[in-house]
Amino acid sequence: MDKILRIKMSPDQEPRTETEPIGGYAGFGGRGMTSAIIAKEVPPLCHPLGEDNKLVIAPGLLSGSAAAMSGRISVGCKSPLTGGIKEANSGGQPAQVLARLGYAAIVLEGKPADDKLYKIVINKNGVEILPGDNLKMTGNYDTVEHLKSEYGDKICCISIGQAGEMKLGAASIAFTDMELRPSRHAGRGGVGAVMGSKRVKAIVLDDSGMSMRKAQDPDKFKEANKKFVEGLRQHAVTGQGLPAYGTNVLTNVVNEAGAYPTYNFKTGRFDGASAISGETQAETETARGGQATHGCHRGCVIRCSGIWVDKDGNYVTKQPEYETVWSHGGNCGIDDLDAIAMLDRLDDDFGLDTIEMGATIGVAMEAGLAEFGDADKAIELVKEVGKGTPLGRILGSGAGITGKVFGVERVPVVKNQSMPAYDPRAVQGMGVTYATTTMGADHTAGYAVTANILGVGGNVDALKPEGQVDLSRDLQVATAAIDSTGMCLFIAFAILDQQETFQALIDMINSFHGLNFTADDFSDLGKKVLKLEREFNEQAGFSSKDDRLPDYFRKEALAPHNVTFQVSDSDLDTVFNF
Amino acid sequence: MDKILRIKMSPDQEPRTETEPIGGYAGFGGRGMTSAIIAKEVPPLCHPLGEDNKLVIAPGLLSGSAAAMSGRISVGCKSPLTGGIKEANSGGQPAQVLARLGYAAIVLEGKPADDKLYKIVINKNGVEILPGDNLKMTGNYDTVEHLKSEYGDKICCISIGQAGEMKLGAASIAFTDMELRPSRHAGRGGVGAVMGSKRVKAIVLDDSGMSMRKAQDPDKFKEANKKFVEGLRQHAVTGQGLPAYGTNVLTNVVNEAGAYPTYNFKTGRFDGASAISGETQAETETARGGQATHGCHRGCVIRCSGIWVDKDGNYVTKQPEYETVWSHGGNCGIDDLDAIAMLDRLDDDFGLDTIEMGATIGVAMEAGLAEFGDADKAIELVKEVGKGTPLGRILGSGAGITGKVFGVERVPVVKNQSMPAYDPRAVQGMGVTYATTTMGADHTAGYAVTANILGVGGNVDALKPEGQVDLSRDLQVATAAIDSTGMCLFIAFAILDQQETFQALIDMINSFHGLNFTADDFSDLGKKVLKLEREFNEQAGFSSKDDRLPDYFRKEALAPHNVTFQVSDSDLDTVFNF
Repeated sequence: MDKILRIKMSPDQEPRTETEPIGGYAGFGGRGMTSAIIAKEVPPLCHPLGEDNKLVIAPGLLSGSAAAMSGRISVGCKSPLTGGIKEANSGGQPAQVLARLGYAAIVLEGKPADDKLYKIVINKNGVEILPGDNLKMTGNYDTVEHLKSEYGDKICCISIGQAGEMKLGAASIAFTDMELRPSRHAGRGGVGAVMGSKRVKAIVLDDSGMSMRKAQDPDKFKEANKKFVEGLRQHAVTGQGLPAYGTNVLTNVVNEAGAYPTYNFKTGRFDGASAISGETQAETETARGGQATHGCHRGCVIRCSGIWVDKDGNYVTKQPEYETVWSHGGNCGIDDLDAIAMLDRLDDDFGLDTIEMGATIGVAMEAGLAEFGDADKAIELVKEVGKGTPLGRILGSGAGITGKVFGVERVPVVKNQSMPAYDPRAVQGMGVTYATTTMGADHTAGYAVTANILGVGGNVDALKPEGQVDLSRDLQVATAAIDSTGMCLFIAFAILDQQETFQALIDMINSFHGLNFTADDFSDLGKKVLKLEREFNEQAGFSSKDDRLPDYFRKEALAPHNVTFQVSDSDLDTVFNF
Repeated sequence: MDKILRIKMSPDQEPRTETEPIGGYAGFGGRGMTSAIIAKEVPPLCHPLGEDNKLVIAPGLLSGSAAAMSGRISVGCKSPLTGGIKEANSGGQPAQVLARLGYAAIVLEGKPADDKLYKIVINKNGVEILPGDNLKMTGNYDTVEHLKSEYGDKICCISIGQAGEMKLGAASIAFTDMELRPSRHAGRGGVGAVMGSKRVKAIVLDDSGMSMRKAQDPDKFKEANKKFVEGLRQHAVTGQGLPAYGTNVLTNVVNEAGAYPTYNFKTGRFDGASAISGETQAETETARGGQATHGCHRGCVIRCSGIWVDKDGNYVTKQPEYETVWSHGGNCGIDDLDAIAMLDRLDDDFGLDTIEMGATIGVAMEAGLAEFGDADKAIELVKEVGKGTPLGRILGSGAGITGKVFGVERVPVVKNQSMPAYDPRAVQGMGVTYATTTMGADHTAGYAVTANILGVGGNVDALKPEGQVDLSRDLQVATAAIDSTGMCLFIAFAILDQQETFQALIDMINSFHGLNFTADDFSDLGKKVLKLEREFNEQAGFSSKDDRLPDYFRKEALAPHNVTFQVSDSDLDTVFNF
């Protein structure tokens, strides 16, 4: 994993590839790699869909090794949704495969003159750029079927659906899972639109003939990995809650906490929560012959995913995540898991961020395009995106634009990216993260639900402003570091609570790379990444005024706790004081 | 003109009015008044369509007097299009009438809970707020007909069309002309959307029984006004060019200079320019029985407007302005004055900014929604806005959103407001104004075409960066002052070139108000207004990075001169050094 692959699109000549040594980017992986390349090579004021933007796809520092949980991949660019730097993170197989093929990053550059589509095939023999027009306006599922019939079932795929081709702000990039289904997505910030602007429909990866990446000190690495896995298994969240009920274990928890954004962030509790909870979801999956516990990539030991099947036992989609169940469910007043699964499937097929789309449908409902709770109409609306109608293009452009086009005032976005499944009034630490992260509203950037609600990594009163800035800052730093390793962010539950599990992670990195990383070094890595990102955003025109929630979160009190967002602007402005 | 009328909308009670003394706002008029009120009373981070935004309508310091040219009115708010402060300026009768009724400003505040529409009737007896639901989704022309049948033909009207009711980013506010037609518009920045968000459909003004505002020193005032008018009559632009051919006298001039943005800013000359020039327009109007020389308000001595009639002599619209003829004409490759007049009429009826709409159609053509030059399709597209279809809502939201929704990279906007009819590469001083004005791309904010092309107020090479910042700065300061007087901006041609005409203006202000204003005081007034506006924008989140043209203006050379925009970023950042 010592080389960088550049795919160069150009208006003047045929697309070409260049492979170069990792050079100055050595030591970066995952989000660190994507943000380092974007910060160094992309002019902050360029058009996100123009030739100067780049799309970087990078496995993590431990991806492709035997390290458990190391199958996450980062996608970076200047975001068409936020206008700032973006890292969107996905599970699936490609991280491991790309790492084993030796690539620390794929960089899509430039822009072709015409609308022809391409596909890229990467295997042990090298890289080929081939015509892809036969896949034009094909959904991710059919696209992968086409590629499977052509290249066999040992491949894995990175692809965009119709939304990416249309360059919409909510467009995601799909990564295939263990069953070679395009069910894992780098969802946020419109990364799929940037891939679409480069006219790359799909990247096919095949690591046949390549071997697992080897540690510098195999014995120490094996030992550390063992301790790490033990630590994950013994923590209540990673060892029990997530395997049993998936991320959707959170529905009942967050709803109980009065922090579950319902009816487009109007109230903090949803009457239908139980019907769409992780418990109900797992039970239904098991009863129908789906799977309630399943990994999104080989090497996962948490296995928080699952397989959702219809009443006849036919595959519909992977188990919809908590965020998706919320966005298309409670946020829109919908309490029907089958409808939510269909919306998830459509999003995955068209290549859309499920969080952005659910939030968008919520705004559309507020605008009167559908009644809250009308699942059929919600499905119809998402189908419009796949058809590419004007209405579909509006919705596929995300909640911010939908709000503008329909004149809606209550639009839950920061930096034009929609908020995820925690109301910032009732999880104030999350509000700090939404407001200040370089990414636009993003729960994964500093998941304060830990100490605010779950009692993980300490306890900070969710309803009060005190302590939230420090909490969010620490989590944002830790997250930027974890996102560089290729590790699933869910390891954070265990490493926040269990010092020996955190040490095992450090030991894995050290024994694998022959380093002497300390806990402080790990933290410094996170700070370095955040600083790169923050500086890019400043150069792109962001000021402290962009680190704010929409003003209605300070004005409208949220039931049942009747709280408004209380963290002061001046406190928000200290998050990056490190 | 010593009182301020506040129309207070509220979710909790019936709309009510309050009249208060001018107080601390004394000395402000027009743009100075609107910007002072917005800067002081509107939270910069509020939602533009929310209860905290205000819509201010203010005649100028000399409006309602016998001063020639004093019939301009300013509309201010936080703009839903740019997110910054906004002053949009219009001709028509209301400035004079409102001033004679004694109001220095009308301020629409708050927001009602429901969607009911209101109309406001103001006459010598006071103010009434009445139901307006009978006018729902009615175009400006029919709205005014309704009001005329109800209140007689001595009134004048301020109203919004369908676009304002839908709260679209390109929505304008219509002001009736001398013939009681809603043909003059405060076009820019979506001011109509803010009026729509307050649910005020129309304001009816009747100054029957009121008299002209009197000067403190009537003799001196009369004398100054006489000199002022003489000055306007003797200058080539205000005395000959504008009266004969209207603002559209510029088509041949700007096209000849290679600065006429054609095909969505792809080239600087349009083959069809002659067919849509002011000369052709005037000739056609005269031949058909329209009018080639006509004022937009009583007291105008330039009379740059006209009446456009169809082949059978029936009224279609007022003579489309240069900017409109360009935006719907050359910018879209359309060389048919009848089609352009129809587009102007539709814009006026729906209540849309003609500059924004033409630029939007240009972007839509680049996206493939129509061929450049297809006038029928352009008309169809604008009609979509009136119908309120999803496509119409996209287009009515302006060029920026249309570009995002359709994935177009070449979108000629600054601060999300579309550029007017001068390519910033071939009129580099205009580029400085577009980039730096507080308003978003706006030609009227600092009309560098004067010294760049017309040889008015000096000569600065239009194709070179040297001298442009100083030129734009001086013009921006002067404009902010002129926009405070209620004077038509076209007086600038004469006062820039003729010291005695400028002095006559100062003498008018002094003799009217009993002041001892100097030329420096006039300039200081302009600086004060600009500083208020700039500070508001900074608080709203604007940074120097927002004072930039889209990057393609630095990369794509414009034919025929093959120039790119050359003024450096560091020079742009000195515009507000005063």
